[in-house]
Order: sequence, then C-alpha cells, then structure tokens
Amino acid sequence: MSTGKATIIQKIKYYRKQYAAALLDDIIPFWVKNSPDYQNGGYFTCLDRDGRVYDTDKFMWLQGRQLYMLAKLYNCLEQDRQWLELGRLGADFIKKFGRAADGDYYFALTATGRPLIQPYNLFSDYFCGMGLAQYARAAGDETSRDLALTIFKRQEARKTNPKKQYNKSYPGTRPAEALNIPIIELNFCLEIKEALPGVEADERISRTIEHIFSRFLNPRHGLFHEAVTLDPDEMDHFDGRLVCPGHGLECAWIILEAALQLRKHRWIAPACEILLKTLNHGWDQDYGGIFYFRDLLDKPPDRLDWDQKLWWVHTEALVALILAYKITGETVYFDWFEKVNAYAWQTFADPPHGEWFGYANRRGEILLTLKGGKWKGFFHLPRFLFMCCGIFQDILDQQGQALRAHHREG
Amino acid sequence: MSTGKATIIQKIKYYRKQYAAALLDDIIPFWVKNSPDYQNGGYFTCLDRDGRVYDTDKFMWLQGRQLYMLAKLYNCLEQDRQWLELGRLGADFIKKFGRAADGDYYFALTATGRPLIQPYNLFSDYFCGMGLAQYARAAGDETSRDLALTIFKRQEARKTNPKKQYNKSYPGTRPAEALNIPIIELNFCLEIKEALPGVEADERISRTIEHIFSRFLNPRHGLFHEAVTLDPDEMDHFDGRLVCPGHGLECAWIILEAALQLRKHRWIAPACEILLKTLNHGWDQDYGGIFYFRDLLDKPPDRLDWDQKLWWVHTEALVALILAYKITGETVYFDWFEKVNAYAWQTFADPPHGEWFGYANRRGEILLTLKGGKWKGFFHLPRFLFMCCGIFQDILDQQGQALRAHHREG
Repeated sequence: MSTGKATIIQKIKYYRKQYAAALLDDIIPFWVKNSPDYQNGGYFTCLDRDGRVYDTDKFMWLQGRQLYMLAKLYNCLEQDRQWLELGRLGADFIKKFGRAADGDYYFALTATGRPLIQPYNLFSDYFCGMGLAQYARAAGDETSRDLALTIFKRQEARKTNPKKQYNKSYPGTRPAEALNIPIIELNFCLEIKEALPGVEADERISRTIEHIFSRFLNPRHGLFHEAVTLDPDEMDHFDGRLVCPGHGLECAWIILEAALQLRKHRWIAPACEILLKTLNHGWDQDYGGIFYFRDLLDKPPDRLDWDQKLWWVHTEALVALILAYKITGETVYFDWFEKVNAYAWQTFADPPHGEWFGYANRRGEILLTLKGGKWKGFFHLPRFLFMCCGIFQDILDQQGQALRAHHREG
Repeated sequence: MSTGKATIIQKIKYYRKQYAAALLDDIIPFWVKNSPDYQNGGYFTCLDRDGRVYDTDKFMWLQGRQLYMLAKLYNCLEQDRQWLELGRLGADFIKKFGRAADGDYYFALTATGRPLIQPYNLFSDYFCGMGLAQYARAAGDETSRDLALTIFKRQEARKTNPKKQYNKSYPGTRPAEALNIPIIELNFCLEIKEALPGVEADERISRTIEHIFSRFLNPRHGLFHEAVTLDPDEMDHFDGRLVCPGHGLECAWIILEAALQLRKHRWIAPACEILLKTLNHGWDQDYGGIFYFRDLLDKPPDRLDWDQKLWWVHTEALVALILAYKITGETVYFDWFEKVNAYAWQTFADPPHGEWFGYANRRGEILLTLKGGKWKGFFHLPRFLFMCCGIFQDILDQQGQALRAHHREG
C-alpha cells in the first residue's frame, strides 16, 4: 500500500519535529552531559543505559567521530559555544596523543592517552581526519586543517596496503578488497570538500564511485559484496559470499549525496536500485528489522552475529530512503522509510533513560544495555537525525516551491 | 534434588549406550562419509545440515583436529583400518602444505593446499602437533613423530610472542596474557605424553597448571579471567573483565585429567570448585544453557555473541562434570551433568540428519544450519562422546570393584 503525496507532507512535518526534538533534547544533551573527560581530555564513549561511564579506554574511531559530529553541528546547525568547546577537548586529545610515530592514528588509548592498540587500520585516520577537518572550519584552527590534509594525502597511498604488517592474508593466493574502505573514502572526501573549501576531492569521489559500481556490485543479485577478489570466479567462499546490508545502505546514501553535490545524475538510478534490492534482501520477513550479515547464496555465514539488528544499519537505511524519496519523489522509498522508521524507534529508543540502545537480537530484544561502547558513540544516531531533518526540510521546501509556482501560474 | 547412587549407576549404563551409539553410528559415519577430500587430500570441514560440502577452504585447526581424532580413535578405541587411512589423508596434506617457510603452520589453505591465511597464531601448530603425534603412534610414522616433536619444542619459545608481527597491542602499556594458550599447551602436552611415550612433558604440565591457578583465577569470584594483565589493578577494562565459561570448563577437565595422570591430587579440589563456580556463573537462568561470554562485573561485554549457546561449551562442561563425579563421587556433579546433558542433546542434536548443530541463540534456537564450518569440525563432539564413554566405564568398573570387595568381605 503506497501513500498519497498530501499525507506524506503531513507525515514529514511530524517527523521533522520528532527528529529535531530527539536530536536537540535527548541525544546531544546525553553526550554533552556524560561523555566529556575534562580531566584528561577527549571523550568517554562507554556509557551505560543511564549514561554512566563503565569503561574509560578511548577508541580513536569514536574520538574522531565525536569531534566530527560536534564540529559539524556547530558548522551546519548552530554556532553553540558549548559544542565548539567540547570539540576542542577532543581535538586537543587527538592532536596530543592520537598519532603514532609512523604517522598513522592508534586504534585505542588509555583514558590518559597512553597507546593501547596499534594503528592497524585506516579507519582511525579517516574518522580523526573528518573530525579535524570540520573542527578546523569551526575553530579556524590551522593545525587541525594541516593534520586533516595530511590524512587526506596519506590515505590514498595507504589504501593499497590498508592493514600494513597486520594483514594476515597470504599474498597472491586470493587478493581481495573490502567494501568498507571505498565507503569511508567517499564519506571522508565529501566531508573534506565541505569543511575545507578549495580542496580538490571531486576526482577522487568520482573515481571511487565508478570503482564501487564496477567492482563490488553483484550483477545478478544487484547487491554489493562485502569483499571482492580480483578473479570473479574465485568468489565462492565465506568472504566472497558475505553481504552486509548496512554497508550497502550506507554506500547508497553516500553515492546519492555525491550525485547531488557533483551533479552526476547517472549515479542516482543504480544507487536507488541497490538501495531497494539491499532492503529486500536484508529485511527479516519473520521478525522485522534488517539483518547484520547475510550469505549471498544462503549458505551459513561465518558470523555468529549475522541475524542481529544493529542501530546503525537502520539509521543508514533511513538516511538513504528519505534521500531517495527527496530525489525521486517515488513513494516506494517513503513507504520503506516508514517501515524501517517504525521498527527502529520501537526497537532501539529508550525513552525512560534517553538515547538509543545499539544492539538487539533477531527478535528485537536488547542484547547489550549500553548506549555507547567500543563501536557505538556520538555519531550514527545524531548524524542520521541531523541529516534527516535537513532532508525533511528540503522536501517541504520543494513542496512549498511547487505550490508557489502553481499559485503564480494559476 | 540430588540423586541416589543406585539410580546413578542405572543412568550411567543408559548414557554409556546412548553415547557409544551416537559416536559409532552417527558422528563418525557422518564425517567418514562427507568429509574426506580424496582428490586433494585433507578434509572438507564446511558441511551443511545433511553433510553436503558448502565451502572448500581448509582451516588448519580443523585439519589437525580431525587427524588427531581419527588417530586417537584408532589408538585408543579400535584399530579400524578406515580410520587410519583417513588419518593418512590428513597427515599427508598437513605435511605437504601445512607449514610456512618460517616453520609455523598456516591458518587456512585452499582446497588444493595453496596458502590463504598466514600462520598468525599458535593454535594451528598445536592442533597439527596433536594430530601428528597420535598419527605417528597409529601409523608408526617417523616423519609425523619428528614434526610433532618439533612443534613441541617450538611452541614453548613461541608462547612469549604468540601473535608475532600480527600482535596489535602496543608494547608495555597493558601487557596481557590469554587463558586459551596455557589451556591448549596443557591439552597438547597430555596428548604428546600419551602418544609418544618417553617424551618428558610432566614438568611443563605442572608448571602450566600452577601458572593458571596463580595468574588467571579471580580469587573473589572463583572464576578464570579470559585474559590477565601483569598489574591486577589494571583489570577493569573489556578484556580484563571478560569470562568465557567454555574455557573455564575446558580448563577444569584438563586439570582434572592431568591431576589423575600426574598423581597431583592437590589440583582436584580447586579444579572442582572452579567448575561449579563457572557453571553457576555461566548458566542462563532464564533459558537454560551456558553463555558464551560474560562480563565479570556484569558490564556490557564487548562481544555481540555473548549470550549464544555453543555446542563445544556444553561438551566441555559435560566432560568436566562426569570426570569430577568419577573422581569425587559427589552427586552435585552428576546432577549438573544431567542438567547440561538434557539441554545439550535437546538443543544441538539433529536426529533427522545426524550430527549436532553447533550454534544456537540464547533461547536455544538454531542460528546456523551447519554441521561443520570454519571452527566446528570432527573434534569436540566425538572427543566428548569418546571420553565420556571411557569415564562412564570407569565409574561402572569402580562400582563393580566396590561390590566385589563388599562381597568378599561380607
């Protein structure tokens, strides 16, 4: 059953209010109150159901992401001094402790900044880079700008050997490439482009998107592989068969966003098609929600958490769906948005204590009571709410323009 | 409610039959039929519900384990030529393809033996070593004996740097040690001792057990930590708080077995106490079964699979419990045995297709349809059935001796 346009506009007005209230009255205050480590700098991200810190280690993905989100909100929503000051707390910690001697960013530090886990993957750098770029713009901080640009330059070279000496694959037998790297590369380039005007990122964005389409898309299923080998005949193994719907959905909105920014309209139709196919394949027909992993050929996946429902998979889906609706006006995206939206709030929201749970089992029962941890921080949820508010507004503005045009013409 | 001795003896007679039938009429035939790769050598371990091969990669842990189990059955149960020949299939594959240039054993190979995943941990070597040692005895094969002894010597040195260049921990900040390494060291030493008489392993066994008791046991909770740091005040973090009941239970039976073999009776009482405390802590009061992981302080663990029920956790518990009952005669262990036994067969057994499922969710619903995979092979289940049959027999023999003694004295 699809929904009429007038009803959709009414609903979007309602969602705009709901999402804005969640972002401004719940999510931001929860993290502003519970997360800052004023003593050592940086942020605590391991927060229990009611916001209490239950672990003090600092994971650099989450330090970078929280810095990014605070500075992004300062730059794009409101110049709130508190957000900028909290941004400085994270930026200073990252600048002081985040970088190893080889120039890459650690994975984890102790509360006081002593290194715990080596820089074994690219994501710490990408997230710190996104954070430093937006903070550079917010605070006019040249050091942060230089660091972000250094990451921007280094990452392109690092992509050829993203795991460094920690790579366990035997060279040559089955050379593989993971989808999450071009996704984060795209996300990072779009943020650099916005935060540091004048930096040329369009060519990298275009090249990465063409690479994703040509390399990761399974032509028969219309889904992205989570990893691909050079030889397409060599794909029938655990890694080659793995599909992560969350990454497919995240990738879809990032491509749609890039298509708008770079005016590459030819990317829109395939991204929208992948979005729908990924949802159809990833949606749990029995219990609702989107699976964490699936095997493309329905063999048993090598992941014990494959059937779980994670908050970020659903927030990424919602961003992709409302963006696809804004761009195409096709109600199929809005109907899916409402279905995922209902599931997500019902499953993850926690009105008595605020914020969202992150991890539910297949039935939607909460698996971990945390609001923040080693992987969940101040990032996916506020970014989704912030982005959706903007997209809701765009849709209402389009509608307003259409009405005004009609009025003028009438 | 505890059970009377006469009833226990009747029940053990029943279980002895049930377990022997499961081992000989179901589990062994399932793997003998479906697992051998006669073309390339070695074993397929990724077997679907009905035994069909769904993935052909070869994981060295499982190659070594299957070789071990076949040769162990040949040496200790019956000199079945088929088991020996299938053993040779695995031993030849391991000898030909298993070892990397640095002398360590790969983690994974392709079906034809091309290396896929580097030798990044000790377990491939330990399992191949156990397999080669038992196979050396079964086949009188000198090459296998030499390889097993080389592993025996190398592993002691490797324990100080088990992850080699793949270690992601920053040196010095929080030096930690994992429980699974002394457990496999113990298991391996006991097997070497049995398979290759004359090899001196008792001192290594004693030293490892004293090390486990002094280093991994949490004195307040009576449970083993999954990892420990040098500084006991530095334990309140994800890794330090983690408890894996399955490892505690496995460790308990291995210590009990070592106590019998080395006549170190002082190890029995603490191992039995840890066994009961681990079960009490690990048992799911709501749905039954033993959790995969728990946080010692009930904080959210850093494992999305923490509440799942895995077959091997339950088989290790059952071995520990029946062994503790045999040694102590205390019915608390038998009562627990029956509780875990009922849960395990009801949850994991699959009478229509044979063998056991390996992975269930918290409610005991099957999560993956596989009978074998990347981690589940021909090992825990047949070892458990084989060991329990022997222990059941010991208990019945003890009972018989007691009766005969009573008769003579009467």
